[in-house]
Amino acid sequence: MNDSKTSSSVGLVSPQRFRFDEPLRLRSGKTLPAYELMVETYGELNSDRSNAILVCHALSGDHHAAGYHSESDRKSGWWDACIGPGKAIDTNLYHVVCLNNLGGCGGSTGPVSINPATGRHYGPDFPIITVRDWVNSQVRLMERLGIAQWAAVIGGSLGGMQVLRWAISYPERLRHAIAIAAAPKLSAQNIAFNEVARQSITNDPDFHEGRYLERGVHPKQGLMLARMVGHITYLSDSSMRTKFGKAFASLQGQQGNFGRDLRSGSLSFGFNIDFEVESYLRYQGEQFSATFDANTYLLMTKALDYFDPSVDYDGDLSRAFAKSDCRFLLISFSTDWRFPPDRSREIVNQLLKAGKHVSYLEIDADQGHDAFLLPIPRYVKALSAYLGHAHRELCRDAS
Amino acid sequence: MNDSKTSSSVGLVSPQRFRFDEPLRLRSGKTLPAYELMVETYGELNSDRSNAILVCHALSGDHHAAGYHSESDRKSGWWDACIGPGKAIDTNLYHVVCLNNLGGCGGSTGPVSINPATGRHYGPDFPIITVRDWVNSQVRLMERLGIAQWAAVIGGSLGGMQVLRWAISYPERLRHAIAIAAAPKLSAQNIAFNEVARQSITNDPDFHEGRYLERGVHPKQGLMLARMVGHITYLSDSSMRTKFGKAFASLQGQQGNFGRDLRSGSLSFGFNIDFEVESYLRYQGEQFSATFDANTYLLMTKALDYFDPSVDYDGDLSRAFAKSDCRFLLISFSTDWRFPPDRSREIVNQLLKAGKHVSYLEIDADQGHDAFLLPIPRYVKALSAYLGHAHRELCRDAS
Repeated sequence: MNDSKTSSSVGLVSPQRFRFDEPLRLRSGKTLPAYELMVETYGELNSDRSNAILVCHALSGDHHAAGYHSESDRKSGWWDACIGPGKAIDTNLYHVVCLNNLGGCGGSTGPVSINPATGRHYGPDFPIITVRDWVNSQVRLMERLGIAQWAAVIGGSLGGMQVLRWAISYPERLRHAIAIAAAPKLSAQNIAFNEVARQSITNDPDFHEGRYLERGVHPKQGLMLARMVGHITYLSDSSMRTKFGKAFASLQGQQGNFGRDLRSGSLSFGFNIDFEVESYLRYQGEQFSATFDANTYLLMTKALDYFDPSVDYDGDLSRAFAKSDCRFLLISFSTDWRFPPDRSREIVNQLLKAGKHVSYLEIDADQGHDAFLLPIPRYVKALSAYLGHAHRELCRDAS
Repeated sequence: MNDSKTSSSVGLVSPQRFRFDEPLRLRSGKTLPAYELMVETYGELNSDRSNAILVCHALSGDHHAAGYHSESDRKSGWWDACIGPGKAIDTNLYHVVCLNNLGGCGGSTGPVSINPATGRHYGPDFPIITVRDWVNSQVRLMERLGIAQWAAVIGGSLGGMQVLRWAISYPERLRHAIAIAAAPKLSAQNIAFNEVARQSITNDPDFHEGRYLERGVHPKQGLMLARMVGHITYLSDSSMRTKFGKAFASLQGQQGNFGRDLRSGSLSFGFNIDFEVESYLRYQGEQFSATFDANTYLLMTKALDYFDPSVDYDGDLSRAFAKSDCRFLLISFSTDWRFPPDRSREIVNQLLKAGKHVSYLEIDADQGHDAFLLPIPRYVKALSAYLGHAHRELCRDAS
């Protein structure tokens, strides 16, 4: 048994499926007549139902944020580093809720689901989903769970964007908004990388205009490429140097800032893999494309591209936050070049302009955008302290 | 007629083809029995043949560095911003030589050439070429042209790497080495992007293991994707913001740091193009893939990945420069994130460690890696002043 399935793990968990039969009107103008959401929860909901935290996932995440699905499970949930008894999001204090978002491929209604109107997989007919749509669907889940107000809504990256949308659209529904490694909207460079990912997928001969499931294939190569591009943007230049620089440096008989690692000590003089980073990237791409749905990937990139809560306020994000009533915590990571600290500071500045209560923490970390998933001591301690304090306040308010 | 075909242009130019029948032993251990190089020259060679400058091209460049091939030519050579009468590389002072490198697709022997051994296109059988091989082939060209020593060897990016190799392998053959926006070797991130580009090309169903020419097709989509990825790395985040941020900002009724530009003012809620940057990238990719050879692209990325002149010196680049006898000028650009200023400083530090004469200039420029191709005033003035001074020295030494 994996030794992290110990006292600091939430242990064995099972997802629950919730069905919603009330139609959901989407930002695109389309309507989902009904939908299902896959949900996991960790920790006990207290008697006044005030200690619930919503965790929002990012591009490739799902409802399985912590713990294990079986004793033989080798991999824990995607945010197990931060969720568990005694961890930053402490399940001894909080009831944590995490769902697979609409359009996902983790079990919630999405492109791989059967479209009741046709009896076939939705595939490319699944409507474009925005962050706002997700939050609207999450409000219904909240109501179903009998939770009137989240103690906090927390997410990193695209998850952080959902946090911001919660604070804007449902100000009375959360006490704390914690957005990590997020951005107020995507940069042109961010969109450009997403476009490359989309082109990779849609150019794959197995894509069949999104109807690949009906043909019993899937655009594996295209999705692999998309993930490889994405993966480069999740890692920092320096973390890649650290990860792939050592063997080469030692091969060369000196400590060096090499940034690359020859696989075998000599060049192939062909198009085989020469450097560890190539092998690593291909492996990451292959692993991902074996399990993730390509149409979902397309939808997720569009949700990112479209995110811009300032759009209803003539581009003035501070006005978007005018009615927000929660406390904000923004966290960024020094080497994140996907959503760098500057992007978090933009949000902080707009919150300050709107007169909101905001804390901001910039963490020195070598791991790039991926840092938000990792147990980086200063980050975990800060999140833990913030949520510990929030819990004491919660108890004080209740008594 | 284009108004840059004026006094500051070298005007109409014609390439020349040079054939070399002496076998060229390559770094890979393979041998090219014979090869041809396409060459352009601008400006007059002086009587003592001392004023020749070799310009080395980067990944997608060729021999056509300046001027026009016909009166109706709408596009000048790739470095026309810097080469011409009165320009930074002043053809009133210097005789400029530029060639298409071996393995290229501009007319020099490469994958699109006919392999005399088979009577078919070389295609994937064309051997892997390294920067060192290029420089060895350039030495032969130099001898053919009756030039004993270059007044300078100049290049940006992969061109700058050829400059460094010249200074290391042929110290007596150049007076000045000018490496712009270069790096001592690729970072893991650089290699990762190249690997994505290669996978894009080789995964294209029209690639046919590199034998696409024989089938009358070419991997257009794959090459387009490769170029899109590359193009993102050539531009800075801030230059993309400037290029694609304006229309959206004005649409939203405010000056904003938007970084993206909605094409039509409203979202498509589909997978059509929503943002100008998507349209721009696709256009760049399509233009490129219509004219460039995919096997050449693969070769060029491997030449980049393999570049590391320290490899013969236990990883100590300063030792590689020990015998260099030229003066060095290194130039980098503030927003270049492909080969950032840090990479040029690494080279400078190794040159200083080796006790060499080196000047270093870091240019504040918004245009990222592409800046080296552009007429940025401080850059052009510095290059011009340096080469003007070098020319006066040349004349002094001759008299």
